[in-house]
Amino acid sequence: MMATYQKQIPGGVQDYLQAECYHKRRVERALRETFMMSGYDEVETPSFEYYDVYSESNALKQERMIKFFDPNGRILALRPDFTMPIARLCATRMEGAELPLRLCYVGSAFGNDAGAQSQRREFTQAGVELLGLPGAKGDAEVIALAIVAMKEAGLTDFQIDIGQVEFFRGLMDQVGMNERDAEQLREYVEQKNELAIELMLKNYPMGGEIKSDLQRLPMLYGGPEVLDEAQAISSHPRCRAAIDNLREVYALLEAFGLSDYVSIDLGMVQAIGYYTGVIFKGMTGALGYPLLTGGRYDHLLRAFGRDLPATGFALGVKEILLSLDSQSALRRQPGVQVLVGADASCVSAAYAYAQKLRGEGVRTAFCLGCLPQQVVSQARQLGVPKAAYADANGVRQLIEVKEGEA
Amino acid sequence: MMATYQKQIPGGVQDYLQAECYHKRRVERALRETFMMSGYDEVETPSFEYYDVYSESNALKQERMIKFFDPNGRILALRPDFTMPIARLCATRMEGAELPLRLCYVGSAFGNDAGAQSQRREFTQAGVELLGLPGAKGDAEVIALAIVAMKEAGLTDFQIDIGQVEFFRGLMDQVGMNERDAEQLREYVEQKNELAIELMLKNYPMGGEIKSDLQRLPMLYGGPEVLDEAQAISSHPRCRAAIDNLREVYALLEAFGLSDYVSIDLGMVQAIGYYTGVIFKGMTGALGYPLLTGGRYDHLLRAFGRDLPATGFALGVKEILLSLDSQSALRRQPGVQVLVGADASCVSAAYAYAQKLRGEGVRTAFCLGCLPQQVVSQARQLGVPKAAYADANGVRQLIEVKEGEA
Repeated sequence: MMATYQKQIPGGVQDYLQAECYHKRRVERALRETFMMSGYDEVETPSFEYYDVYSESNALKQERMIKFFDPNGRILALRPDFTMPIARLCATRMEGAELPLRLCYVGSAFGNDAGAQSQRREFTQAGVELLGLPGAKGDAEVIALAIVAMKEAGLTDFQIDIGQVEFFRGLMDQVGMNERDAEQLREYVEQKNELAIELMLKNYPMGGEIKSDLQRLPMLYGGPEVLDEAQAISSHPRCRAAIDNLREVYALLEAFGLSDYVSIDLGMVQAIGYYTGVIFKGMTGALGYPLLTGGRYDHLLRAFGRDLPATGFALGVKEILLSLDSQSALRRQPGVQVLVGADASCVSAAYAYAQKLRGEGVRTAFCLGCLPQQVVSQARQLGVPKAAYADANGVRQLIEVKEGEA
Repeated sequence: MMATYQKQIPGGVQDYLQAECYHKRRVERALRETFMMSGYDEVETPSFEYYDVYSESNALKQERMIKFFDPNGRILALRPDFTMPIARLCATRMEGAELPLRLCYVGSAFGNDAGAQSQRREFTQAGVELLGLPGAKGDAEVIALAIVAMKEAGLTDFQIDIGQVEFFRGLMDQVGMNERDAEQLREYVEQKNELAIELMLKNYPMGGEIKSDLQRLPMLYGGPEVLDEAQAISSHPRCRAAIDNLREVYALLEAFGLSDYVSIDLGMVQAIGYYTGVIFKGMTGALGYPLLTGGRYDHLLRAFGRDLPATGFALGVKEILLSLDSQSALRRQPGVQVLVGADASCVSAAYAYAQKLRGEGVRTAFCLGCLPQQVVSQARQLGVPKAAYADANGVRQLIEVKEGEA
């Protein structure tokens, strides 16, 4: 009897077959190299940890994590992201390291219904964490790296939207809105639901001018001129500081020659319980949801007993692959280039020749017990463009395998 | 209040900090490249699958797998090995592919108390599966690749022990031993417990000569002369076929120039319910347990509805790292080589310079708002050997950072 689900895979996970896996590894390698070259060191944390590592994050919901019990009844969770474990690492195992710490990672994260738009339960992320560098300098470094990483991954059609959670928080302070209402308003702004915002604010005890300003929040999107508009809206110190920070970040990205990739979006208010300053996301034309999210989270490490400013981002590797595919930017996987055959009399020479080719970077398969005709026809069958045959006189030259040849 | 286990990691898993992770990636890359060059294509299967995929394997025990439930109550298991999911892939998603199929993988596998000697619950494996090539040709190809892979990973002090499960099975057929007794004897042979074998066989109804032959099983270890010894022990067809197979494999490895790495071990009888022919393991002087295991498992794919001969091996990446460490073969991680500093007036030139260095493969960190003195002292603090400073006149030359300099 066959086990019921033996030939299926669960929803939300996937197999990467040969060509897909090849492209995935290429993207992962390009991102890893880019991070490394900019001074970031890769680290690897376990695929599962104690649930407690994640339980105090404002960004991670219990019901979204995949959990199980260890033999002693402690709750374990499959890594829902990389930021919390790296915060743990930094707080508990890198106390003596010079700051700033530049760390990066590439690996699988897990969730039930994680990233609701993608429905994935296992998703490969690549990202960086910059720990110990506060303010616009850190923000700009990390956003610049996000742009360079997307370019190095092969993306051409992408942009980064930058927001600042302190601008919204400052506005809420200014109008004295309570937390529940502020959260409700935040959701409407995130959804760009202008009607709901209008209805909600209609009877709210506040001046008409600030009402209409709040209604404009979802439209505060565009080039640096948006910052002037925003400045006109509020002179509350938190808002002012947020705008100053964005100006500085934008100026640095402009100096780096990267501002063409960047838009300002003050209506971007997601996960404001988690982030503490600049937030940003990367979008491509091919996807209706971000393939990159990041921002500053200066309070996160406190939960682990170390108070350090921090900023970072995570890229979705599958999202990059989908975008590259829609750009037709996935190159053909290089298949096996040579099939070396040998009969019993000359295995040594043929194997040595195969190893020589491999050492030169030529993908070479080996076919034992082949007669000359067989190696050519087998190469043709396998779609290998060249065959080589070794007989008792040594190794022959490479033979171009032509279609239809005997 | 801090969550109880927030700052700990569970037993059996580990963090790879910067230098360790660097070495791990180097080894993984070397193995992946070696497999690729020999014509193997990498595939990636999900980190967890339905438990049913693994439930019919003779090699995997239910109590060793890490399991949890999906939202619909189906049992999921973290991948305990790569062979079963690749068998599933091959049977269900590669029906049309030309044979032989050469597949490889690098990734995490999981188990409770998995690999009892190492106590690890997450362990990185790299390996290959050769599907559709029966007999000694397939065996020799895969064993040769195992040897080359260990060399390419940087190991010098290693060897491969080769056995054949059919030799033991033939002996059991010959003496007509029932399955339970045969399993008991197998365990004693695996433990090389000669006294227990002697006591067990003492009253067994069989001839004295075959008794003393069975007692010698744990000692059938060494060069190809062991095969002559084995041939003298039994002329049972299964034993004879096993010896013929090993002779052919050994001759091919000799022709490949690899026989110096190989020993014959007919007392190697582990997992004979799983393997169907040649089995082998890789050992290094540094470790008391194998860092590589492999063999032929011609019946495995039947469970997924496709009948294909198959052989393969898996290498433990952590075991390679431990062995390299004891060989003092872990090179120093290349740190950041240049720190480029800039004050506000010349961010553009400095960033362009940093990007230029990175493009040339120089690991370069960027330091904004640095005065010339600061960039040198910061480089010294971070252990970066060169500093570069950009001022309004453009980028200065690289400065060698010397100890004790102001």
